[in-house]
Amino acid sequence: MNLPADFQSWVSARQSRIEALLEQVLPAQRIVPGRLHSAMRYAVLGAGKRVRPLLAFAAGELAGADVERVTIAGVAVELIHAYSLVHDDLPCMDDDVLRRGKPTCHVEYDEPTALLVGDALQSLAFQLIAEYRLADDPNTQLEMVKLLASASGSRGMAGGQAIDLESVGRKLTVPELELMHIHKTGALIRAAALLGARCGRELGPERLAHLDTFAKLVGLAFQVVDDVLDAEAPTATLGKTAGKDAQQNKPTYVSALGVTESRRFAEELRHDALRALEGFGERALRLRQLADFIVLRKF
Amino acid sequence: MNLPADFQSWVSARQSRIEALLEQVLPAQRIVPGRLHSAMRYAVLGAGKRVRPLLAFAAGELAGADVERVTIAGVAVELIHAYSLVHDDLPCMDDDVLRRGKPTCHVEYDEPTALLVGDALQSLAFQLIAEYRLADDPNTQLEMVKLLASASGSRGMAGGQAIDLESVGRKLTVPELELMHIHKTGALIRAAALLGARCGRELGPERLAHLDTFAKLVGLAFQVVDDVLDAEAPTATLGKTAGKDAQQNKPTYVSALGVTESRRFAEELRHDALRALEGFGERALRLRQLADFIVLRKF
Repeated sequence: MNLPADFQSWVSARQSRIEALLEQVLPAQRIVPGRLHSAMRYAVLGAGKRVRPLLAFAAGELAGADVERVTIAGVAVELIHAYSLVHDDLPCMDDDVLRRGKPTCHVEYDEPTALLVGDALQSLAFQLIAEYRLADDPNTQLEMVKLLASASGSRGMAGGQAIDLESVGRKLTVPELELMHIHKTGALIRAAALLGARCGRELGPERLAHLDTFAKLVGLAFQVVDDVLDAEAPTATLGKTAGKDAQQNKPTYVSALGVTESRRFAEELRHDALRALEGFGERALRLRQLADFIVLRKF
Repeated sequence: MNLPADFQSWVSARQSRIEALLEQVLPAQRIVPGRLHSAMRYAVLGAGKRVRPLLAFAAGELAGADVERVTIAGVAVELIHAYSLVHDDLPCMDDDVLRRGKPTCHVEYDEPTALLVGDALQSLAFQLIAEYRLADDPNTQLEMVKLLASASGSRGMAGGQAIDLESVGRKLTVPELELMHIHKTGALIRAAALLGARCGRELGPERLAHLDTFAKLVGLAFQVVDDVLDAEAPTATLGKTAGKDAQQNKPTYVSALGVTESRRFAEELRHDALRALEGFGERALRLRQLADFIVLRKF
């Protein structure tokens, strides 16, 4: 993947901001209960591509959003994402032992601690998004809290997990797969983009709808690429156990379409996503580059 | 327990309001994913004393709060409480099979569904408290979101669970027990009272501090009584498995103080709680009656 050097440094600078704020908002191990706080830090810090916060930053540029504000919104979204990974890895769900190149949280600590880590990370996300000033109008900020909550809940991310559970062992059609992923990963990715934009000046409903379409398509592309990588990349590159989908008999784009057709589909989604940005001009540069980054990534 | 008839009808009317709003905000089973929504409804509806919402209503009366608003705040708190019960009952935590007289959520459905039920109930709580107008000033409402989030998280309820985990098999002193319960049940009980009050006109920091002291003491008394009932009442009365604390070698007020001394301690806490209300006059009637209700209850 050859992305321009200035994009690489844009990404690095923002990843560092996210890391620094995560480091600051996660309670230190010396604060009671120490083991829980240690496990929360273990599950969140020091790894992860921070794709959702990056989308928030890129969308924030559309609206001239203050970078400090977007960092907080991005961290809140990342905490929700991190909690979902900890719970998904639990023995009663995917029963996975490796995540981001390290033992999963319940392996490194224990199962009840991992359960509480997820629960407490979710609370922390809402604490942050309510605590810091993210929008000039506090009513806008309340709408942002609501957006994050509905993207996380039973009609968003958690609902996607439930659809996933119901589909193990079944062969899904491509529309059924899409329904699952629009919930499971898409809802939070869309929330990330919209929250980033809402940290800035009002874009208006039409431009927000274009941004939402972009995020929806990029989110699907992200998932298609994830399925291809799970089928093809080695565990060492992924930082999580490769080949788990086939092993667990999970329906994926690869099982529905094959690798070649899945790659083509991801490319098509990227193309459509970029088209949704056509009216935005230069301010959408980072969004375009992120779409490339997400589809062309190797891990 | 002989509580005045008008208090009984005050309680019933408010329990009905809570039940009706819970019924309305929990997505119907016909909405995708149906099994998750069915399980969420199973875990929340049709049982439960709704003690936390009742405290919110009683505290709301101090501040002349609109009953509609308090209902929403009370439902948000109750959803957090309900999620915590579902997760606490999971095999990796207390491994309990009976709750509110019915099979626990993971027994009636399955373990991964129960995990997602808890996760999604937490999100729904924050969605509600951000979505409806609860305070004239939206900044006050953002503070209310933050209050609920911090009461739920690693320095509140989830943290209390973690302290509980660390203490199984150890004998705790009374101050150590208090630290655990101030987190585990106290944080959410205090949040319920403060949220109820904040739905009304500003009480000012001093009166809020008195209310908080009251809620803290009543919350502890609630826990002491819970421990006594677990040791003494039959399963059929409790609606959950009796005698679990001793069986699981959990430190309780009964194991630290014995039954007689625990009852005396609960009575002392009630007395102190009532003293914290001395400046409030007639508006605190329901709070006083609730303190009696909590300490004198038989289930």
